[in-house]
Amino acid sequence: MTGPQRQGPQERLGSLGPIVFYFDFISPFAYVGSVAIERLGARLGRAVEWRPVLIGVTILKIMGMRPLREIPLKGPYLARDLERLAQWFEVAVRPHGLGTVNPVMASRAYLWLVDNAPDRAKPFAQEVFARLWTRGIDIGGIEAVVDCARQVGADGAAVRAHLDDDGAREGLRRSVEQAVSLGVFGVPSFIADGELFWGNDHLWMLEHWLRTGSFAPGSG
Amino acid sequence: MTGPQRQGPQERLGSLGPIVFYFDFISPFAYVGSVAIERLGARLGRAVEWRPVLIGVTILKIMGMRPLREIPLKGPYLARDLERLAQWFEVAVRPHGLGTVNPVMASRAYLWLVDNAPDRAKPFAQEVFARLWTRGIDIGGIEAVVDCARQVGADGAAVRAHLDDDGAREGLRRSVEQAVSLGVFGVPSFIADGELFWGNDHLWMLEHWLRTGSFAPGSG
Repeated sequence: MTGPQRQGPQERLGSLGPIVFYFDFISPFAYVGSVAIERLGARLGRAVEWRPVLIGVTILKIMGMRPLREIPLKGPYLARDLERLAQWFEVAVRPHGLGTVNPVMASRAYLWLVDNAPDRAKPFAQEVFARLWTRGIDIGGIEAVVDCARQVGADGAAVRAHLDDDGAREGLRRSVEQAVSLGVFGVPSFIADGELFWGNDHLWMLEHWLRTGSFAPGSG
Repeated sequence: MTGPQRQGPQERLGSLGPIVFYFDFISPFAYVGSVAIERLGARLGRAVEWRPVLIGVTILKIMGMRPLREIPLKGPYLARDLERLAQWFEVAVRPHGLGTVNPVMASRAYLWLVDNAPDRAKPFAQEVFARLWTRGIDIGGIEAVVDCARQVGADGAAVRAHLDDDGAREGLRRSVEQAVSLGVFGVPSFIADGELFWGNDHLWMLEHWLRTGSFAPGSG
């Protein structure tokens, strides 16, 4: 079926920007999404650009909401949905018992690496995610963040030196602000070819969109 | 791939109950789901049993939440997501400008029909949904409800006579209470073979579950 929104691959080649992936280290759904979206990008030959947001610290306040896992009825559902999604996307996730984990330092370090050692940035974020969500190790403290940086071959001392300076604070603030201005309200979120998708349960729709430029079934 | 949760079709035949579909007439997502789940049921040879809940009146209060469409950032996202999902599931939806629509009378009528004219119950609910979400006609009032009943060949006078009696009130209260006890917190929700799924964006997962008894990819 060919709908009015359908574009041929040729017409779309000119606009193949990256898939932008919004994450918060504290979300196990974002961890699942981080693995799934890299596989999807690889399948389609599309780059994936990672951008940190702060759901708990900032975005839920804008929305006037509590953390989803604390909401009656929704919390238990999400716990089960995480298990199912992790199985579907073949990502090992182990809920940790750490209580509140602070993602701010790790997010600042990620942004510093993007600017100063770009080939180490994504491996660093993947290391942070895996420590927290497969090994249950707190990644909130400065030592943990520096250790993750070293683990992926980045300059730990340089990361440490910039975790608390104005540029790092400002960079993270801007990252969150820009995400919000684009409508991001949860993680994982994905923006690609002008559309925002929230949640791993929308990845099938994102893939269809990227393949066909349409939301109609059967096109492409 | 065969995972530990995998069951053969033979083992599962004994437990093929209906897919239970939870709806609230006021939700356009539930309308899309009502069409999509009947098609899915037909594809898989599974009956679909419809059960009304009252999201706005009851369930959001339990959750301590506002209506999702009123939440900053999430509201605009949901409006766009409705368009995309309607396109994907090929369901015409036209947002109405009616303000608050009260689903209570129509839900009571539906339950009365389930008990007293079961072959008219689902056509009635489909008529209510279509009036509201394709033609933008308010279905909250008693006259509208009776008219929908007549439209599908039910006894309008009998429906009218029972809209406000104790049995009707109690039946709807029980329907909501039972849904909540099973973890339902939004519409559309679907329960089948022991699993709860929320949202049309989970229908692919429900279908995979029904076909394979597993959440692992590639099984079945």
